[in-house]
Amino acid sequence: MFVPDAMRDAVSDRAWIAAMLEFEAALASAQARAGVVPVEAAEAIAAASRAERFDPAALGRQGRSGGNPAAPLVKALTEAVEGDTAGYVHRGATSQDVMDTASMVLARRALALIGEELDGLAAACARLADEHRGTVMPARTLLQQALPTTFGLKAAGWLVAVLDAHRRLAALPLAVELGGAAGTLASLGPEGPRVLAFLAEELGLDEPTLPWHSSRARVAELGAALALTAGVVEKVARDVVLLAQTEVGEVAEPAGKGASSTLPHKRNPAGSALAIASARRVRGEASILLGGMAQEHERAAGAWQAEWEALGGALAYTGGAAAAAGEVLDGLEVRPERMRENLEATGGLVLAEAVSTTLGERTGRGEAHRRVEATARRAAETQRPFRDELLDDPDIELTPEEIDRALDPTGYLGSAEVLVERALERYREER
Amino acid sequence: MFVPDAMRDAVSDRAWIAAMLEFEAALASAQARAGVVPVEAAEAIAAASRAERFDPAALGRQGRSGGNPAAPLVKALTEAVEGDTAGYVHRGATSQDVMDTASMVLARRALALIGEELDGLAAACARLADEHRGTVMPARTLLQQALPTTFGLKAAGWLVAVLDAHRRLAALPLAVELGGAAGTLASLGPEGPRVLAFLAEELGLDEPTLPWHSSRARVAELGAALALTAGVVEKVARDVVLLAQTEVGEVAEPAGKGASSTLPHKRNPAGSALAIASARRVRGEASILLGGMAQEHERAAGAWQAEWEALGGALAYTGGAAAAAGEVLDGLEVRPERMRENLEATGGLVLAEAVSTTLGERTGRGEAHRRVEATARRAAETQRPFRDELLDDPDIELTPEEIDRALDPTGYLGSAEVLVERALERYREER
Amino acid sequence: MFVPDAMRDAVSDRAWIAAMLEFEAALASAQARAGVVPVEAAEAIAAASRAERFDPAALGRQGRSGGNPAAPLVKALTEAVEGDTAGYVHRGATSQDVMDTASMVLARRALALIGEELDGLAAACARLADEHRGTVMPARTLLQQALPTTFGLKAAGWLVAVLDAHRRLAALPLAVELGGAAGTLASLGPEGPRVLAFLAEELGLDEPTLPWHSSRARVAELGAALALTAGVVEKVARDVVLLAQTEVGEVAEPAGKGASSTLPHKRNPAGSALAIASARRVRGEASILLGGMAQEHERAAGAWQAEWEALGGALAYTGGAAAAAGEVLDGLEVRPERMRENLEATGGLVLAEAVSTTLGERTGRGEAHRRVEATARRAAETQRPFRDELLDDPDIELTPEEIDRALDPTGYLGSAEVLVERALERYREER
Amino acid sequence: MFVPDAMRDAVSDRAWIAAMLEFEAALASAQARAGVVPVEAAEAIAAASRAERFDPAALGRQGRSGGNPAAPLVKALTEAVEGDTAGYVHRGATSQDVMDTASMVLARRALALIGEELDGLAAACARLADEHRGTVMPARTLLQQALPTTFGLKAAGWLVAVLDAHRRLAALPLAVELGGAAGTLASLGPEGPRVLAFLAEELGLDEPTLPWHSSRARVAELGAALALTAGVVEKVARDVVLLAQTEVGEVAEPAGKGASSTLPHKRNPAGSALAIASARRVRGEASILLGGMAQEHERAAGAWQAEWEALGGALAYTGGAAAAAGEVLDGLEVRPERMRENLEATGGLVLAEAVSTTLGERTGRGEAHRRVEATARRAAETQRPFRDELLDDPDIELTPEEIDRALDPTGYLGSAEVLVERALERYREER
Repeated sequence: MFVPDAMRDAVSDRAWIAAMLEFEAALASAQARAGVVPVEAAEAIAAASRAERFDPAALGRQGRSGGNPAAPLVKALTEAVEGDTAGYVHRGATSQDVMDTASMVLARRALALIGEELDGLAAACARLADEHRGTVMPARTLLQQALPTTFGLKAAGWLVAVLDAHRRLAALPLAVELGGAAGTLASLGPEGPRVLAFLAEELGLDEPTLPWHSSRARVAELGAALALTAGVVEKVARDVVLLAQTEVGEVAEPAGKGASSTLPHKRNPAGSALAIASARRVRGEASILLGGMAQEHERAAGAWQAEWEALGGALAYTGGAAAAAGEVLDGLEVRPERMRENLEATGGLVLAEAVSTTLGERTGRGEAHRRVEATARRAAETQRPFRDELLDDPDIELTPEEIDRALDPTGYLGSAEVLVERALERYREER
Repeated sequence: MFVPDAMRDAVSDRAWIAAMLEFEAALASAQARAGVVPVEAAEAIAAASRAERFDPAALGRQGRSGGNPAAPLVKALTEAVEGDTAGYVHRGATSQDVMDTASMVLARRALALIGEELDGLAAACARLADEHRGTVMPARTLLQQALPTTFGLKAAGWLVAVLDAHRRLAALPLAVELGGAAGTLASLGPEGPRVLAFLAEELGLDEPTLPWHSSRARVAELGAALALTAGVVEKVARDVVLLAQTEVGEVAEPAGKGASSTLPHKRNPAGSALAIASARRVRGEASILLGGMAQEHERAAGAWQAEWEALGGALAYTGGAAAAAGEVLDGLEVRPERMRENLEATGGLVLAEAVSTTLGERTGRGEAHRRVEATARRAAETQRPFRDELLDDPDIELTPEEIDRALDPTGYLGSAEVLVERALERYREER
Repeated sequence: MFVPDAMRDAVSDRAWIAAMLEFEAALASAQARAGVVPVEAAEAIAAASRAERFDPAALGRQGRSGGNPAAPLVKALTEAVEGDTAGYVHRGATSQDVMDTASMVLARRALALIGEELDGLAAACARLADEHRGTVMPARTLLQQALPTTFGLKAAGWLVAVLDAHRRLAALPLAVELGGAAGTLASLGPEGPRVLAFLAEELGLDEPTLPWHSSRARVAELGAALALTAGVVEKVARDVVLLAQTEVGEVAEPAGKGASSTLPHKRNPAGSALAIASARRVRGEASILLGGMAQEHERAAGAWQAEWEALGGALAYTGGAAAAAGEVLDGLEVRPERMRENLEATGGLVLAEAVSTTLGERTGRGEAHRRVEATARRAAETQRPFRDELLDDPDIELTPEEIDRALDPTGYLGSAEVLVERALERYREER
Repeated sequence: MFVPDAMRDAVSDRAWIAAMLEFEAALASAQARAGVVPVEAAEAIAAASRAERFDPAALGRQGRSGGNPAAPLVKALTEAVEGDTAGYVHRGATSQDVMDTASMVLARRALALIGEELDGLAAACARLADEHRGTVMPARTLLQQALPTTFGLKAAGWLVAVLDAHRRLAALPLAVELGGAAGTLASLGPEGPRVLAFLAEELGLDEPTLPWHSSRARVAELGAALALTAGVVEKVARDVVLLAQTEVGEVAEPAGKGASSTLPHKRNPAGSALAIASARRVRGEASILLGGMAQEHERAAGAWQAEWEALGGALAYTGGAAAAAGEVLDGLEVRPERMRENLEATGGLVLAEAVSTTLGERTGRGEAHRRVEATARRAAETQRPFRDELLDDPDIELTPEEIDRALDPTGYLGSAEVLVERALERYREER
């Protein structure tokens, strides 16, 4: 239920079959280029490698008993070509070559979709950063108001994290796998390395130094990069949920979504919740991939077979998380006035550091900190406005004007604007 | 691909809908018993609550935007009953009540299926323990031969672990959830607690002390118990894989399965690999459930929504793992002669402890250990049979008869037989 | 830094050594009872088994190269007793017997400390539940105000979860491990089972059906139960953090803690943060234990050795989490007036369900829901008080008195009071 | 017990304090360069920032109650400098700036140590790959002998994975963190960005686009990269454990280690077990880092505080795993004759593919596969040597010479030699 249809399709059984067929067609073609398979045979195999000709459910059932779906697919493909050509299907390859290369083909496609969702999310972040570079709001540490910041800077923080995540996904090494039954390319004779190189070219994937059948870092790294991406998206969603709280009310998710079945007044952050739930699923899947690297000898019994669904799930849910968060930000209702009100809720206490900094120029930082802390504590205890306490306190050796300047949140934003610009500049460059 | 059809069905979208409808029918019935809903209305709701009337795919899509599939289902059910009865559908309940109770209904059913698989697995373990109580084989620690044991004792170890796992699942507290929108049962007025009690009766689930909408230990404990079960199954499968190694050859998976696509001579432990892969998936799902307990206030934004697929997956894959391991043990080919040969591979070194114990009665344990260790090392270095070295070594103050008795593996099985009997006794009691 | 000293000591290297020595003393004593070791030897071994005589750092270093610290300890203990007695040290046992039984002894002690912390936490929850059974506050789902509840009911929810967690820990099966080098008790001859039974008695631990050297569910279940406990504690801490937010302000952690280094006005929920951080560590450790169950044959190479620190960490951090949360609740500042204010922040919207329920008695539930939803939406859009909108709306066929009654949060608490009493009753019974 | 002293020191409390002091000194120096702190003050702060002057235990205890150890350290450092200089200590920074930058400084140092261990491991792999490029052994898939390969190629596979892991660690972005209390650099006024840039220079760390206090991907990515490294190391250790099995006996860990306490003849793969156990711990720690990315607003309550020990643990155990595996490979005893014997254990069946390939040139691949499979099955059933069956079978239309050539494992190694050379070439380039 959590995954948009396009993402689900990209990792479906049918998508796996299509990717496996792509491998078989490219393998025959690579061998034709290497001169060890007739060109006509390669063409016939390519022609037969159309996913819609094969029944995913039947192959899945057969695959269950044999241990993987590659063997039944190869059998079906072999039957689908005629005469002598059959002998050239899957030549020199083993089931793992098919599955592993297919996983890379499938990942590339799914990563492209995820990339689109991240583009959308980054665009929404950039727009919010740009529009709200002057929108003052409370920064919160340990969920306590700390100092003023801007909503623009918050969105810029999301933006940079999304750009980093995107870059990380784009840099993932996706390599072809071809090793034959033992990783030696034995049944290809001396042509093995050339076929490997051609196969990589055919599929547009990297050529690995060695066949990687028993080196699973590639797959685990994919899982880790997806978990990192999901974590970045989850952070955005979590901030939205917190800002949308009834008592905070600084943002609201797009209207129309998240209507409560029983409570007519509620505007639930349903999109953010969906993003968070999806991100949690990604982590579960990634833990399987990271936990299964120590695969026995030249092919594992179990850890390898656990990868396929974990990888598919991690890809799909990362896309789902990004899509949900993108939708949320696209329609996000931002309420600058509420941000301002919240900032004033502490009666100026949130600017105590600004007062302290100003006073410190006169008394030294430590001394100023001690004095302002005492005044702040008194204000909190007496529930009087901080400004009034400051004005009345002889230890606060500042003029009313100085106090008012210090208590103006727009005057204590530090480099917020500059930082937003740094983020946007990077966005413009990388877009 | 890893999950048998029955398990898959038990956690399918349709199964969720059926469980949700079961909740709605039972809720109306409980309220009829409490006198707050007309009996006819409850009957009409029960009549309308037939899963086949609802479209899982459509409800899923609608659920995606709203945050959970309960709201669209309630809407559809309300439309399916006529006139005034509509007002009694889902009365006093919130979406979480539906989902949480449905998860318990669904879990109960899936746990029953898992229980059957574990029964089968336990039976196979018990048969092997019984038949092979006298089948001597090497015990291995850190994968090195240590001492003789029996295959019966190994199977008895699996058996006890499976019985423990089964018992743990059977003891899981599955409770009804009903709290209304805030956990106060507010819209049921003073009848809330009675309706809660009746609902529990109707569904045959526990009545909780409090509504548990924000206390997720029940669900997380389910996840943990499934992970423990999967771990027990994985241990069996791993031992089989290790025993089935070409160089060990003490068991083989049932013929016909695991034929290699490229290597005609191989007999792959495909069933064990399937069990291991499934168990790994269970752990991934369980980590989501254990990681999501700290849910915010009266309903979480994200952690709750992540539970459904994780729970379904954990149930299905645990069943799949148990089924695969059961099939493996049912048809397991055990090779006592190979076990015996392997035991002799060290030329008797594996019985060094027995020699040491015998000698120790004369020289003291420490001294005997030192002397036998020296002889053993020499045997290993010279590649001579350990027996010959013992006979030749003046420090080994034992007669040839004593040496031969010590080197007889059947004479150094300790309490293996007694322990097998303890395990079988427990099996007979708990069956 | 996160763990109180008592917890840290309970899982320290010294504590491990003490537990291992306890095993050795009890083993000798059990064998003396079985008549296979002289009583004097057992007494001498017991006398030598004083933890302060051994150097944890040295044993640790020696243990690193050998694979576990049991072997060097046995060596040191053997040297510490004189003459013939040495031959009776560790008789019939293997390193794993020492480590596994020691882990149970150590766990029992640490669980007792955790139990005390949970007792304290439960007492604090019970006090809050009792004192605040009438303290009205907003219930929040997806962090949106949903309906009124009481702080007493919230605390009762924490309480029941803590009681459940405590019960779960108390029910954990802690069993002695004794199997000898291969799990057959071979070097104990026919006395093996009797020694096993006596050993269990001596240590006050369960006697297992079989030696459990290769069945790790016991340890993994401990890890899971600790993760469940930590999750329960984390939920309490998370709720406190959310309630303590500047904009919510319904509770504050005890003054004096959590003062900010730079921001004098802040009152950070530092204790809750500590509890949350500790709980996260517990989950990390538990994942190691749950992930390591499939141990090879009669002793694993790696998965077993990873258990010790994981178990120690899981115990210590669970205790640390409970201690931190207990301190937080003990000194928690609760602000009923702020809860009331927050409840009014929506201008009565949070009681829309109550209005709907009242109106529903006249118009039917569905119709009432639709009408009140429309009014609520208008109130939200126009920012007018919900009460005013209700009074002006001809579709809301209620008298002003009925409206005021519906909008009184104390009149829409459902069974909150009854539920609090159920929780307290259980607390009184189980205390 | 698992971690070598150097690694343990690199992440000790004292190392944290040293790293924090390095931050404070560099911060003062950066501000001196920016002209906002007197050069003398910066020098005085640098002079006072000597780790041995501070008491880790005391700071830890104080840190426990305040939520992090930065505040007490800053206080102690402030007291350690005299007079006016105190006012320049920690100027413009917040606790998180100290902790986060210190974590990067500490990580860099620990990564360098890990890098050295990986260098050693890579060198050992390279040596084995080189020396054993002609050492024929069975390749095993699902732990069944599949085809011949070389031990050199197996070691080359380890080598490439280690090189990849090393490269991944070296590419990790380690950036300085400085944002002040809210991430706006407010108390540094307009000099914030310059101070940030100078600070990065001083410490030799990257300058981030934005302060990353609430973007935790940096730390999580570190965790992921360490988990990937640990997984690579674990794979090596697992293969060694499997090859060292009594029944396989193709390698043995260095003598002198892993002597059994009770079984004189055993040569336990204790170093490999240590590496595996350490790798499992790394994964536990990494799961904490990957699971804690969604940190609330400008600083999290709990998830952030959980990072420090998790990061330290992940670094230390990765180093420990690599060190243990390196020691294992350095002294690894390789037994080519045993590899050859094992290869012959199937009576030539392991070369069935070679026969099939040869025959396929005559009959077509599919037909050859069917015929050879039948012969192989018969050989397995009758326990006759495969060669004899092949010779007797009229369907195997090959001459005795062709059969013998096909059954020669050195003739069916495919590109093993070329692949080893590819790996070594890369090693030579990257060293």
